[in-house]
Amino acid sequence: MERVLAVDLGGTKTATARVDAAGRVEDKIREAACPSLAETCERIAARASAAAAIGVIVPGIYAPATGMAWAPNLWGWNEVPLKRELESRLKVPVWIDSDRSGYVLGEQWLGVARGCRDVVFLAIGTGIGAGVLTGGRLVRGARGIAGAVGWMALAHEFKEEYRRLGCWEAEAAGPALERGARVEDALEFTARGVANLVSVFDPEMVVLGGGVMRGHPEWCGEVRRRAARWAQPVSFPRVRFETTALGEDAGLLGAARLALLGAGLAKDNEGIYVG
Amino acid sequence: MERVLAVDLGGTKTATARVDAAGRVEDKIREAACPSLAETCERIAARASAAAAIGVIVPGIYAPATGMAWAPNLWGWNEVPLKRELESRLKVPVWIDSDRSGYVLGEQWLGVARGCRDVVFLAIGTGIGAGVLTGGRLVRGARGIAGAVGWMALAHEFKEEYRRLGCWEAEAAGPALERGARVEDALEFTARGVANLVSVFDPEMVVLGGGVMRGHPEWCGEVRRRAARWAQPVSFPRVRFETTALGEDAGLLGAARLALLGAGLAKDNEGIYVG
Repeated sequence: MERVLAVDLGGTKTATARVDAAGRVEDKIREAACPSLAETCERIAARASAAAAIGVIVPGIYAPATGMAWAPNLWGWNEVPLKRELESRLKVPVWIDSDRSGYVLGEQWLGVARGCRDVVFLAIGTGIGAGVLTGGRLVRGARGIAGAVGWMALAHEFKEEYRRLGCWEAEAAGPALERGARVEDALEFTARGVANLVSVFDPEMVVLGGGVMRGHPEWCGEVRRRAARWAQPVSFPRVRFETTALGEDAGLLGAARLALLGAGLAKDNEGIYVG
Repeated sequence: MERVLAVDLGGTKTATARVDAAGRVEDKIREAACPSLAETCERIAARASAAAAIGVIVPGIYAPATGMAWAPNLWGWNEVPLKRELESRLKVPVWIDSDRSGYVLGEQWLGVARGCRDVVFLAIGTGIGAGVLTGGRLVRGARGIAGAVGWMALAHEFKEEYRRLGCWEAEAAGPALERGARVEDALEFTARGVANLVSVFDPEMVVLGGGVMRGHPEWCGEVRRRAARWAQPVSFPRVRFETTALGEDAGLLGAARLALLGAGLAKDNEGIYVG
């Protein structure tokens, strides 16, 4: 069975592995992130031998129309030509997307959302973002910025800190909790954000992931309970809520799935399309 | 050039017309809505002669998976088997979707969003809803309820009236304004809702339509100005804001486009897919 090279370029750690169409993972390496674009691409190319395709996810924005990536934790404030730099070093096709897209693809393939075509993966960690499959397709937006839900406006009063982080992220992401935000307040913001994602997307499932949610799986039920009164009332009761089953591997497996689907190597696409 | 029959089943008025692939409209009839499902289907069938396909939009929810429609203003609180009832009377294919989907398809075809593949059409009238194209595809959700954005939670405090209408709709739709809601408050809610749609979808364009917005095109700039401070700041400045160019015909033209695309009769699909 052919293998792809999966690469999860996290903000602080990089994970790479070979993955086959059955989801078998080999040679997984987790190491400190490399701050240089050129060196990152060299590392990937050095591990690409015998891979039929490469899937890469980035912690930020990837614009399919231009092949440019924006990941301030890795490469500073400017966009970088990630696709061009990778393709110049590789002989096989490369598929790139955001980490949010990777999470939802991974969870749909091998996690709690298996068989679903309408899924919201909500990642709450240092930041807040969502990867979305609707009708089996990734929601990317015109410039790859879709799913930036940490910017969701969920309160009437505008606070200065929203300007830098967005309302939801300022009130309920990891740093807010570390600074002493009351958990109850954070959960109430998260419940409203989740309710809005249900009213907008009418998904089969909401998957809660990211470092904060992985550390508190018991919050899943509480978020659901609080979201119920805000969301569209026909859709909401039919939405399943789950905590991520893949943990920190969701992105790596999603990068693999991206490459497998993109290169036509998936055993069964299950109605999921990434092209 | 082949023609389709377009049907816009509004809550109070029904519009029908023959439309060809160039968007030419003939025999447009606007008449009082018919409350009986059987009679509605008879009327449509009686006008379907020489049409190559039928496109129908409904004021509520349409679930493609089951062919059931829910439109309380027309057929009461229960779902009705609209697709089955139509198909039993028709010899040509029928395509059905929600009014929200119709509006965005119409505006993308012949209105202000021509050539765009990522568009949010926000309808503010008696209710609030959104039709969304993302990557050229309609966002329908698992049960056809996607775009129910009138339920968006945009404030911290829950009011009893939100239970029946949703927060955004209770604060900023037509009935709220008629009851004397301050326009400034309504615009601020609408700005937050629009900001959220931008952060979620990263669209090329937001089109403001529906009875309230058509009556107040000058609010478009004000909504944009107020939304700017809440939305994802890389995406937002690149989003074009427009008021609907098609007015009350957006739905009728969208129903035609739905049938033309569905039946493969469109001259150019412009990267838009409804299947």
